[in-house]
Amino acid sequence: MTPLATEDELLQSIRGILGNGIESFGLRDDAGVMSTPDGGSIVVSVDSVVDGVHVDLALCDPADVGWKALMQALSDLAAMGAAPLGALVALCVPGGSGEGELALGMMHGVAEAAAATACPVVGGDVSEAPSLVAAVTVLGAVDGGRGEGGGAGASGTPDPVSRAGAAPGDVLFVTGSCGGSAAGLRELRAGSPGADAAWSYRRPVARLREGAAARRHGAHAMIDVSDGLALDLHRLADASGVGFALEDVPVAPGATFEEALGGGEDYELVFAVGAASADALGSRFDTEGLREPTRLGVVAEDPDLRVLGTSPLDRLGWQHRVG
Amino acid sequence: MTPLATEDELLQSIRGILGNGIESFGLRDDAGVMSTPDGGSIVVSVDSVVDGVHVDLALCDPADVGWKALMQALSDLAAMGAAPLGALVALCVPGGSGEGELALGMMHGVAEAAAATACPVVGGDVSEAPSLVAAVTVLGAVDGGRGEGGGAGASGTPDPVSRAGAAPGDVLFVTGSCGGSAAGLRELRAGSPGADAAWSYRRPVARLREGAAARRHGAHAMIDVSDGLALDLHRLADASGVGFALEDVPVAPGATFEEALGGGEDYELVFAVGAASADALGSRFDTEGLREPTRLGVVAEDPDLRVLGTSPLDRLGWQHRVG
Repeated sequence: MTPLATEDELLQSIRGILGNGIESFGLRDDAGVMSTPDGGSIVVSVDSVVDGVHVDLALCDPADVGWKALMQALSDLAAMGAAPLGALVALCVPGGSGEGELALGMMHGVAEAAAATACPVVGGDVSEAPSLVAAVTVLGAVDGGRGEGGGAGASGTPDPVSRAGAAPGDVLFVTGSCGGSAAGLRELRAGSPGADAAWSYRRPVARLREGAAARRHGAHAMIDVSDGLALDLHRLADASGVGFALEDVPVAPGATFEEALGGGEDYELVFAVGAASADALGSRFDTEGLREPTRLGVVAEDPDLRVLGTSPLDRLGWQHRVG
Repeated sequence: MTPLATEDELLQSIRGILGNGIESFGLRDDAGVMSTPDGGSIVVSVDSVVDGVHVDLALCDPADVGWKALMQALSDLAAMGAAPLGALVALCVPGGSGEGELALGMMHGVAEAAAATACPVVGGDVSEAPSLVAAVTVLGAVDGGRGEGGGAGASGTPDPVSRAGAAPGDVLFVTGSCGGSAAGLRELRAGSPGADAAWSYRRPVARLREGAAARRHGAHAMIDVSDGLALDLHRLADASGVGFALEDVPVAPGATFEEALGGGEDYELVFAVGAASADALGSRFDTEGLREPTRLGVVAEDPDLRVLGTSPLDRLGWQHRVG
């Protein structure tokens, strides 16, 4: 067996083991869609936060870790245009002195994030483990109609927005600026955190309202920026079988251009809408009290064309090595 | 703050943080119940399997770990009388050589358990972590009517069976024999595994059909034996505010009496039914092609009466220390 080089390759193999229909294991879509016995459907996703890998408890509080764990999972719902119904939290904490309080600190952050997003925690579990892990499952649903290019699915249930569906000529938008979390991490490591960036790292916010608005206003495809704008854009383009030409990238205050392209955990949403909808999009968001999204560029027909200005855009971002 | 001595105390504190209505975080119920936008309800639960804590990869294959991770979570649905709708798997694997293949091996076991229980894997995620963790979330639903003592909930949706609800005079049953998994672990550690017990340890089966039958035939309260028959019986009695008097405990082939009382991970179901239903229960299970449950004893009014024969029954079983 060939060694697996990247997370994406591992996920590809796992989807092979599980068989057809598993689109949501890892990179293909942000969340899975499941039918309920009543003929409806719910959107489901799971994400883990691991101490020493995704977070560093030397740089933030346990409550920050809990907050981020729930927000990271909710961001997958946001990227489908879904609203949260509830969350389950599996906490693994090391045994030994003080670790019970670490778990409680994390749950305070989970509870704060749950209150901020009206997402009740409906279940959970605590296990002993050599290292701290919080695996959060979220359940959500889309409702209401969909704009041009969308429409109800075969079952009559409104469709969530997938990563696949961006079409040549579509305009790409991002809901905010990028690189803030990476800048915050850099500043915290250097011991001189600016308030804005450090907060972006410690307390990211899932763009649930923006995702629902993008879906209502006809988004053809959407993804959240969890591993880096460039990498996540490539994933959306891969799923849609298209290329892209970026004109601009909004850089968060305090962040470098490289951090904006390759820094993960901003949880902004990138989405594609038809050219006819693009001009009015900003005012539609504004009417709903949401910040206007920034135009990134356009979707190209050639799947090999992936450029920023005139330069090829590498897959900058964060992938685990798992081989 | 007083140090937390046990998992149950930690879970109690977590429920305090999350506020009212969180009955399913850990010990109170096996799974949570969540409303869907269509007015229905689904049953949800999450469980983790941690290498070195819940499983020992020196004694079993990665596929066994994946199998057990899904079955353990499904057992929580069984204990509510619910049928599975789907599962999500969050896998945390150590980086480094061979760990990708470890993840794939586990997913083979997950896929086998999913096929055996008709529970599709609808989503998942892989993360790097210092140690191997599989956190499995399952979603399910109850359907059809309920026997005496049950009935539809306020919403018109049939109720899942909780741990609370056992009434004085009820008869306690268990769906199979206990201690098989503990005996298998002992035999594997000694290097001389008997086939039956080792298989009970490596490939436990969630009693989904039995749980659904118990619910249909009027179970007032139910729990799965995940941490030990004695401990889980105490938990059911705690939730119901009752005591119990056991007459007999069915011991699995190869297991000791102590293993039957205190060994976890058998995933048999313990449930309470009204005395009027108790006599016919065995033939009802038999008619459905299910093994007849074994009568354990009766539910007592005095919550302080917890006896096996004439001796007090200790809380034998497995609780993590998390202080």
